[in-house]
Amino acid sequence: MSDRRTADIVEAFDRTQRELWMRSYLTRIASFDGATVAPAQGAAARGEALAALAGQRHAIMTGPDAVELVEALQRAEAAGLLGEQTTEELRVFSRDQKEAAAIPADEAIAWARLTCEAEAVWHRAKAADDWESFAPYVDDIVETLKRHAGYLDAVRDPYDVWLDQYERGLDSASFDAFCEAVRSTVVPLVGEINERGEQPHAPWLSAAVPTSVQLRLSYDLMALLGLDPEGTALAQTEHPFSDGFAPGDVRIATHIHEHDVMSNVFSMIHESGHALYEQNVNPAFSYSCLGGGTSMGIHESQSRFFENTVGRSRAFMGPLLELLRKHVPDAYGSVSEEELYRAVNIATPSLIRTEADELTYPLHIMIRYEIERLLFAGEASARDIPGLWAQLTKRYLGLAVPDDVHGCLQDVHWSGGSFGYFPTYALGSAYDAQFTFAMRASGVDLGAACATGDLAPVRDWLRERIWSRGRSADAPELIREACGADFDASYYCGYLSEKFRALYGL
Amino acid sequence: MSDRRTADIVEAFDRTQRELWMRSYLTRIASFDGATVAPAQGAAARGEALAALAGQRHAIMTGPDAVELVEALQRAEAAGLLGEQTTEELRVFSRDQKEAAAIPADEAIAWARLTCEAEAVWHRAKAADDWESFAPYVDDIVETLKRHAGYLDAVRDPYDVWLDQYERGLDSASFDAFCEAVRSTVVPLVGEINERGEQPHAPWLSAAVPTSVQLRLSYDLMALLGLDPEGTALAQTEHPFSDGFAPGDVRIATHIHEHDVMSNVFSMIHESGHALYEQNVNPAFSYSCLGGGTSMGIHESQSRFFENTVGRSRAFMGPLLELLRKHVPDAYGSVSEEELYRAVNIATPSLIRTEADELTYPLHIMIRYEIERLLFAGEASARDIPGLWAQLTKRYLGLAVPDDVHGCLQDVHWSGGSFGYFPTYALGSAYDAQFTFAMRASGVDLGAACATGDLAPVRDWLRERIWSRGRSADAPELIREACGADFDASYYCGYLSEKFRALYGL
Repeated sequence: MSDRRTADIVEAFDRTQRELWMRSYLTRIASFDGATVAPAQGAAARGEALAALAGQRHAIMTGPDAVELVEALQRAEAAGLLGEQTTEELRVFSRDQKEAAAIPADEAIAWARLTCEAEAVWHRAKAADDWESFAPYVDDIVETLKRHAGYLDAVRDPYDVWLDQYERGLDSASFDAFCEAVRSTVVPLVGEINERGEQPHAPWLSAAVPTSVQLRLSYDLMALLGLDPEGTALAQTEHPFSDGFAPGDVRIATHIHEHDVMSNVFSMIHESGHALYEQNVNPAFSYSCLGGGTSMGIHESQSRFFENTVGRSRAFMGPLLELLRKHVPDAYGSVSEEELYRAVNIATPSLIRTEADELTYPLHIMIRYEIERLLFAGEASARDIPGLWAQLTKRYLGLAVPDDVHGCLQDVHWSGGSFGYFPTYALGSAYDAQFTFAMRASGVDLGAACATGDLAPVRDWLRERIWSRGRSADAPELIREACGADFDASYYCGYLSEKFRALYGL
Repeated sequence: MSDRRTADIVEAFDRTQRELWMRSYLTRIASFDGATVAPAQGAAARGEALAALAGQRHAIMTGPDAVELVEALQRAEAAGLLGEQTTEELRVFSRDQKEAAAIPADEAIAWARLTCEAEAVWHRAKAADDWESFAPYVDDIVETLKRHAGYLDAVRDPYDVWLDQYERGLDSASFDAFCEAVRSTVVPLVGEINERGEQPHAPWLSAAVPTSVQLRLSYDLMALLGLDPEGTALAQTEHPFSDGFAPGDVRIATHIHEHDVMSNVFSMIHESGHALYEQNVNPAFSYSCLGGGTSMGIHESQSRFFENTVGRSRAFMGPLLELLRKHVPDAYGSVSEEELYRAVNIATPSLIRTEADELTYPLHIMIRYEIERLLFAGEASARDIPGLWAQLTKRYLGLAVPDDVHGCLQDVHWSGGSFGYFPTYALGSAYDAQFTFAMRASGVDLGAACATGDLAPVRDWLRERIWSRGRSADAPELIREACGADFDASYYCGYLSEKFRALYGL
């Protein structure tokens, strides 16, 4: 095989990746449009288009041309003819291809339709507190996912297959151990706070702040965190999210509650973490399969790092209070940094995951994880979920669930088919504690960066070890190389215990 | 040929039209996203995606499968085997196909790239008042369009080819005659107003109205005009526009100037007219080539009908003032209907087309039309345009052009390759006057509908004769059937003369 021939193959590979990228990009635009601006009645047409794009992606990725291409590239690699990046692309692409090919094309299209429809039904069900109407979709989705898991790996436990899809290397055994460690730290701590902790009084948290003011504050937050304003767009939606669309194009969608400015502030900081990750992937990976974040857990570690490790740190109260005083002088003019610090760190059990504080958050994940495992084990079906939800919420959070809107209808994820996904949320924060330790060990003064609002040294550390690498390394490898050790939940347990014992004087 | 075989062919035809529709839909979403929310740096990636979609459309439309399909359908039609709608679809599709096939695929893709780049250059040129940087693109675009016109019709005058593309049946001879008629009515009338007309004093026109208030007013206007709120989305952009995306999904993008609420009010009414047209196409035409409006001129007739014939009528001042008083009570509380009527109908020469009044508007079109003809005739090139613009503006509007931002850089159209398009703007208003006459003749009490704000009888007339028909009839046929006569500019000249002589007491 001559070098000339290899160059042709690599060029064809680039073209194929671009073809796939284009479909992903259009899928993202149509989905973003649907979540931010599209009229309600446009959902059916959008579903058509999204299903068609999914079908095209599947056909390109698994078609005979792409299969031949991968074989030719593998021969070229064996002959030592591929460059470093192409070798990485081949590793990731061939895995994507193998996994996509495992699901028959008609099933992939049917899946896109099912989840699109389920999402619309979930929206109506949530508005009407009507679990019954949504339940059949949950059963249908779980059955489909179990079947699809069998295509991917016929012998492995189906739920483990999906855990591994979202977070390479994760399985229920390791997540069980993680939960056990976190639970044994958090549950007693929450109990102690409830018994002996004094909650701060902060009526200014619910001051009315108009949408226009909150939007200006949002742009200032994006600048403070270091997002490139020419490459970042902000929109409004029901449930905040963010996404990387293309080189020079990342999006944040936030939700503004007029009487809860902090909801928007911390959504913005959280989503900015995701957006920074997407915006700082190695530009050489543009339009290739190496673009974007490597896993859900690592992505969430970046959002939670900015939201909690930075955004809710004592040191960051200086820059944050300065912005609040600039935009909401009446309410925040006389609030002190210490008062703000205590107010944004109130830890108390609540019913809604997305509004949960840093300490009780992982307990919300455990409720979902345990229900997902029962569904996949065939030990429960959708109709049992409201009861299970009530039981687990009582056990972990000590609260009664008044209705399904505050219970099992609160999250969109299941309607989109994301089972095995929630654990990555909890892992994200746990990764952070270990990243923070490594960052400090390598000489970054995190406290000083937060206090001055100059986060450049922090971004530099994250860019080099995490962001720039895109999908070129899986999560376990990334953690090992960034921290010099495998993932270890004890950093997280230690961080939570120390922070919240100090906050509540325990 | 058996019926079974025909059914298969028709089914394949439906699938092909859906494939094309899907690419149009994604093109619209990506363009809308680009005009409303996308960050500046995302333009290159969007250009890639739009070019790819254009290439796909071209390949599907002109590929051997679609050519065979059309031939098979034509045989079935000759045998009397096609239904009425399929026959119409075949007529429109085969014309689209023939026209698309005339442009070679690589030229179509290059064209998409050229205009995408030119549009970005135009944006920067307009911001910097830098015609020089944009001029080469204009020459390049004109040369390309002349070549493309030759592919479409090797013998016809290239400019006439493009006039006919935007408005079937239109050529320079007929548009020259139209201009002559309008000019001989409007130019003396504008002169008389300048000499003898008294302009109203209406300082409240520039009252500050915050964006949030103008948005609420916009939604009320959409409801008043009869748009389905579940099927209409509103966004903000630099230059107002609207588009039909899909069944149940039309979009309006407006621009809000805090000190010019009327700019937004009449943009909203104008765009609502376009949106009503798109929203009321026969649902049976969904996903087929018969969806959408039939021509630029007819589309513009619908927007101008609502903007001017309805929105600037004396009778409509009642419902309009009610909304203004509801949202802007301080400024509009003591304004009378008569004062409002005179203020929204101030006729006076100005430099910016999109801000021109109803009377002087067609003169702005003539400036562009004459320059386009010179460019296509090879009698001028882009570097001559600023001089020509100054000369024609002086001749028709009596004004000096201070810079190119207020002259030849003001419109986006040329950067997108839309030459031969401006005439449709002037024709739109002229069609209206004839539609209004026919509407009244068939018993619709337009004045009463405007006065009460119940526009249902007006919409019913338009829906039946224009909107519902989508692309199933070309403009000349539509006009003939709706009005019982061919297009006749004298209705328009009569309308302008009568309205503005009365307004200014001439």
